[in-house]
Amino acid sequence: MQTHSPELLERMDAYWRAANYLSVGQIYLFDNPLLRRPLELTDVKRRLLGHWGTTPGQNFIYVHLNRVIKRDGLNIIFIAGPGHGGPAVIANTYLEGSYSEIYPDISQDEAGMQKLFLQFSFPGGIPSHASPETPGSIHEGGELGYSLSHAFGAVFDNPDLITACVIGDGEAETGPLATAWHSNKFLNPVTDGAVLPILHLNGYKIASPTLLARISREELHSLFEGYGWQPYFVEGDEPAFMHAAMATALDSVIAKIKEIQQKARFDGITVRPRWPMIVLISPKGWTGPKVVDGVQIEGTSRAHQVPLSDPASHAGQLGLLEQWLKSYRAHELFDDDGRLIPELAELAPTGQYRMGSNPHANGGALLRDLKLPDFLDYGEAVVKPGIRGIGDTLVLGPFLRDVANLNILQRNFRVFGPDETLSNRLGALFEVTDRQWQLPIEASDQWLALDGRVMDSMLSEHQCEGWLEGYLLTGRHGLFNCYEAFIHIIDAMFNQHAKWLKVSASLPWRHKIASLNYLLASHVWRQDHNGFSHQDPGFIDHVVNKKASVVRVYLPPDANCLLSVMDHCLRSRHYVNVVIAGKHPSPQWLTIDSAAKHCGAGIGIWRWAGSEQALNDVDATVPDVVMACCGDVPTLETLAAVSILREKLPKLKIRVINIVDLMKLQPDSEHPHGLSDAQFDALFTRDQPVIFAFHGYPALIHRLTYRRHNHRNMHVHGYKEEGTITTAFDMTVLNQLDRFHLTMDVVDRLPYSSEEGNTLKAELLEKLLEHKAYIEKNGLDMPEIQDWRWPD
Amino acid sequence: MQTHSPELLERMDAYWRAANYLSVGQIYLFDNPLLRRPLELTDVKRRLLGHWGTTPGQNFIYVHLNRVIKRDGLNIIFIAGPGHGGPAVIANTYLEGSYSEIYPDISQDEAGMQKLFLQFSFPGGIPSHASPETPGSIHEGGELGYSLSHAFGAVFDNPDLITACVIGDGEAETGPLATAWHSNKFLNPVTDGAVLPILHLNGYKIASPTLLARISREELHSLFEGYGWQPYFVEGDEPAFMHAAMATALDSVIAKIKEIQQKARFDGITVRPRWPMIVLISPKGWTGPKVVDGVQIEGTSRAHQVPLSDPASHAGQLGLLEQWLKSYRAHELFDDDGRLIPELAELAPTGQYRMGSNPHANGGALLRDLKLPDFLDYGEAVVKPGIRGIGDTLVLGPFLRDVANLNILQRNFRVFGPDETLSNRLGALFEVTDRQWQLPIEASDQWLALDGRVMDSMLSEHQCEGWLEGYLLTGRHGLFNCYEAFIHIIDAMFNQHAKWLKVSASLPWRHKIASLNYLLASHVWRQDHNGFSHQDPGFIDHVVNKKASVVRVYLPPDANCLLSVMDHCLRSRHYVNVVIAGKHPSPQWLTIDSAAKHCGAGIGIWRWAGSEQALNDVDATVPDVVMACCGDVPTLETLAAVSILREKLPKLKIRVINIVDLMKLQPDSEHPHGLSDAQFDALFTRDQPVIFAFHGYPALIHRLTYRRHNHRNMHVHGYKEEGTITTAFDMTVLNQLDRFHLTMDVVDRLPYSSEEGNTLKAELLEKLLEHKAYIEKNGLDMPEIQDWRWPD
Repeated sequence: MQTHSPELLERMDAYWRAANYLSVGQIYLFDNPLLRRPLELTDVKRRLLGHWGTTPGQNFIYVHLNRVIKRDGLNIIFIAGPGHGGPAVIANTYLEGSYSEIYPDISQDEAGMQKLFLQFSFPGGIPSHASPETPGSIHEGGELGYSLSHAFGAVFDNPDLITACVIGDGEAETGPLATAWHSNKFLNPVTDGAVLPILHLNGYKIASPTLLARISREELHSLFEGYGWQPYFVEGDEPAFMHAAMATALDSVIAKIKEIQQKARFDGITVRPRWPMIVLISPKGWTGPKVVDGVQIEGTSRAHQVPLSDPASHAGQLGLLEQWLKSYRAHELFDDDGRLIPELAELAPTGQYRMGSNPHANGGALLRDLKLPDFLDYGEAVVKPGIRGIGDTLVLGPFLRDVANLNILQRNFRVFGPDETLSNRLGALFEVTDRQWQLPIEASDQWLALDGRVMDSMLSEHQCEGWLEGYLLTGRHGLFNCYEAFIHIIDAMFNQHAKWLKVSASLPWRHKIASLNYLLASHVWRQDHNGFSHQDPGFIDHVVNKKASVVRVYLPPDANCLLSVMDHCLRSRHYVNVVIAGKHPSPQWLTIDSAAKHCGAGIGIWRWAGSEQALNDVDATVPDVVMACCGDVPTLETLAAVSILREKLPKLKIRVINIVDLMKLQPDSEHPHGLSDAQFDALFTRDQPVIFAFHGYPALIHRLTYRRHNHRNMHVHGYKEEGTITTAFDMTVLNQLDRFHLTMDVVDRLPYSSEEGNTLKAELLEKLLEHKAYIEKNGLDMPEIQDWRWPD
Repeated sequence: MQTHSPELLERMDAYWRAANYLSVGQIYLFDNPLLRRPLELTDVKRRLLGHWGTTPGQNFIYVHLNRVIKRDGLNIIFIAGPGHGGPAVIANTYLEGSYSEIYPDISQDEAGMQKLFLQFSFPGGIPSHASPETPGSIHEGGELGYSLSHAFGAVFDNPDLITACVIGDGEAETGPLATAWHSNKFLNPVTDGAVLPILHLNGYKIASPTLLARISREELHSLFEGYGWQPYFVEGDEPAFMHAAMATALDSVIAKIKEIQQKARFDGITVRPRWPMIVLISPKGWTGPKVVDGVQIEGTSRAHQVPLSDPASHAGQLGLLEQWLKSYRAHELFDDDGRLIPELAELAPTGQYRMGSNPHANGGALLRDLKLPDFLDYGEAVVKPGIRGIGDTLVLGPFLRDVANLNILQRNFRVFGPDETLSNRLGALFEVTDRQWQLPIEASDQWLALDGRVMDSMLSEHQCEGWLEGYLLTGRHGLFNCYEAFIHIIDAMFNQHAKWLKVSASLPWRHKIASLNYLLASHVWRQDHNGFSHQDPGFIDHVVNKKASVVRVYLPPDANCLLSVMDHCLRSRHYVNVVIAGKHPSPQWLTIDSAAKHCGAGIGIWRWAGSEQALNDVDATVPDVVMACCGDVPTLETLAAVSILREKLPKLKIRVINIVDLMKLQPDSEHPHGLSDAQFDALFTRDQPVIFAFHGYPALIHRLTYRRHNHRNMHVHGYKEEGTITTAFDMTVLNQLDRFHLTMDVVDRLPYSSEEGNTLKAELLEKLLEHKAYIEKNGLDMPEIQDWRWPD
């Protein structure tokens, strides 16, 4: 074990004091940044925001990481897990120069320091936690739980990268973080980088002690041993001791990481390593005011936010603040111009080695296009509309397989899923790659390997999402395949990522990243066998609340359309793409060329399906009824309804519209994909009835179209939260999305009542009774419903 | 350690075989339930659904629990965590007689057995996992992750109850489950019951091995020691050995639980105990087909669903199925009538000791009304509208405090939160109770105690939700207080609970339970200090997708309305109530009596605020403009806009409508709270402009009102996903919900253009610029905006 020179440790302490000073300055100072004159009330911000508690610990870690980066030329990015630890990352990226390079206005001098202080948590300024605005950050510190998953996502396929991930002991109590420790079972030491978790045990969250700080150290040790880590403890509050202890610990863990990588990369060791981690135990609000108004602050939850909460109204607090600021001896640290003195500045790494300038944390800068095969080559032959396909995602499989294969040397594409990739019928991937897995593999296992493009062997939607986000944010590509109902598990994570995309798009220095692609392949209509708990199409509703510049929703009606959509999504940048597709054998409608054209438009009239042309109508622009469909099952039921209508009411002029790109329905003023009103009217007419069969909750269609001229005539059928274990067709009947209900609705909306219509309705009601009786006897749908065919 | 007589263990094995037989029968048999004749293809269901893999293990556990229940008169409920383990719980509740008592048609004879088999995963039948239909269940086995949280919720304040919670090794990988192990830090051995987790390590999830099965046993042991448990391992595949091992282990853990409770209850030991748990390691699909078509099935992931997947198309599978069924020797277990023989039947407990008949699992049966103080006594004095309040939730605090206190002996009310109860200003609770906490308590800690009504010291929304659900489902009352943005973390859990409520309401034998009450107290408009990541009002959108019979949404505009709403919610049954309220000082509008009246109606015209009456208009029913508001901040901004308009355009007839109960907006055909069209028209008119200021995303109001006559004139202002760190008022400006934009919108909607109007708009634009300049200089809102007052 190496010892560190006292001189070096003293300089590091000085650097740490500089960072702490800048942190307190950000929280408190409105003016007088270098305390050139006695502190006055007008120097203090009138509204105090920010979180001191976590900050000194994060500053401490950052300074120590700088030492090993500089010494060893390490490639490290920093993730600030604890919420609102913004002052620390900002102070450090400012001290190392990254901040001023990106924001020249925040210069490394007194004027810049004043702006640095003022902008923090101030209108027109920056947030109180690491955010897209923060150099070197890929992780927003608002909602807690995802730091460690992001850290792993960042190092997959980045063998030279280490993510130093600070995890707050509050965050460690969340579910996503509690299971993220198991990510070490997936990290390949040869082809991936390393994650160095630094659990920052400062004892308190907002208002309570933390669990991990109050269990015995033995229990804590067992817990991390059980998670498969080797914990190194650094505990104390005396700075000199702590610097020595942390430096020693960090040397050990870096050596350990190198040793693991060396053994795996050069000695061929394939036994899963026990990766090192650090448990840093330091007082909350370390170096801040110890006691205020007779109440203990440092080392309690009262240090969580601002220890001196109201200098304006509390006599003495102003003096305490000045004393606190002066305790860092800024005059020893900054020169007359307000610039960090060279002896300290040289402690930081330079160029891209600075954690605030590491290009991995601005992943778009490293993004390489995927090599994509021509999706047209993967199409199903559709000799006539309605032929039975093998299952849409099953057709997509070979395309994804070849995407994986074409980029296997580039190593920048992965498929994520919670043990559902096979269930979602994407098994073709396993012809060229495996599920990455570092635990023992048994003879009966399939498609598990140390290295693989598929991250699918952890039953946690949170991990899939977190890993994928980390992977995308560091400049790679990916796809998350999931059951539709259970994607709600990551609703909150989606929110944060969508917000990140929105804000980062507005920052000129942030490069755009690849889109986050969801493939929801086991959807509400085909969860007939799993029942009500698996039936929920509401993720779309959740998604469309986010900024239109960021979200895209696609519902391809068949396999060829799914191919076209997926090709588009994999090429796109800085969006969230939601793709909903079926996996069961179902009718196919379009040839691959027609599909490409249809998906390019996003919405269109299927003239071959309707009866406008068939009737040779002179005025083909005014159908009697418009039948719109969006989603694979709604498309099938709509076309089945049309086939009934064409047979039974042959004079009826029916227009069939299929929607692939849901956002086409919104006005172009609301969404960049939206149709103009004129385009919308040309499709949907201004006054004819529209029977709209939709994949999701009907209200969403009303929400998207309420400003359209013909909205009052739109009658939407969709999921009405009715379901159970039943047959596939019965699911549509329960929600009145089936062909019979759609047909009856058409009859009801016609401006005249006809004997033919009434007879037809009576027939259909009969059919529905017959269906019920049949399935309750046989447990299956009637053959004519299973195998739908287009009428001759 | 006690040994068990071989005769008893043999009988238990026979009982287990009976349960396994009934499980296979449910999955496969259409007819011939007792195999009285050779099995034919027509005896087999044509569509095979269900999950065999987990089932024999759960049957094994159930049989062993029966033994200790019967021996010791224990009060145990059973939670089946592994997904789709329905056949096990159904088989066992049938064998013990609970099933037939609830569903007499499924009788304990051959005819009943046939129906039992047929109904399983069959149209018109029952789901494949434990569900509301399953006797003895409080936990749906569809979405994984929540079993252990539910188990803890069930035993809080139930000192005599033990929840035996089977956790699948797949489920154990989810985030919520991974952190739920820490619940043991909150369980008080004196006043709460015990949770016995039984981790069922059968090695595989859907298609992959599980992590916990592939790490070393030492790591696994460390992990649970680290989580604070004492694990007992039962591992093997030879039934006789396993029965003996399980019986011994179960004796030990029951003795350990009794010892812990004894020590805590009678010996005054307050050191946190190390509760016991069982790790049961048995083959997946135990006792099922070992090899099919040369491929290993038992003990692999291929046993997950149906091991013999298609007897109709695979020669030999029918024979294998018959062989498998016969391996259980049903003729030794059931008599000629198809009834379990008495020597086996007597192994099960009787009456309410049967896990399928335990009243705690039908919690509504045990539900006692809360003792509620008169909320009218807690009102703020509102001498005139617009006086500054102290913060709405701060006013609610004393009411909740007294609810907690009045029911402190009943022990049936708890408040849950992720360390936010103080932040949400409900600290008054701590005048009468504490946060329950079993870890060491330090001198500087506040409001922590071994016993307390507040469950707030774990930073996990998942645990709050899971605990509360378990608490409610066993017949108690509670409230979940949470930041609005982060309640999305439990979107998926809400879905499952809402689905449970919907289905259970349709079962006559299930008693209604107390509502799940959310108080979202730190809402989107007052996250100005925390920034964009904390700003999301979309939970309402998510909630309203669920059945109208189950969901209620309230947005009280002030403290007195909040009191009235909360009183109502705490009295209600079988709903999910979402209440959104502010915590910061804000204007108050209604006296407590007016508030009670207003909230009773749920929506109403605030004549005192508008100018219809003031103008003494003869035709007061036709205002020039309707200004509607829903939510505290929108109400403030609307009334501020009205005050501008009344001053500047004194002849304008303005009607102010305030909405507390959001679902009033939906047609009465859609929601039981909905207004009729006539009522709606009387409020909103049929053709005058409506400027609607809404708390959430504007689209939600359109979605609720698109069928209303006057919908085309509704102009909704709400959250447009614009935010950052700024001031409270600026948040409204960024989203154009502020008084100035609302006022300008009114001017724009008037049927005439006036010079006064144009002048006013110019003034307001000026105001907005002034506001921006002011906050960017001062970091605060202008005083006149902070302290709004009603014009004289």
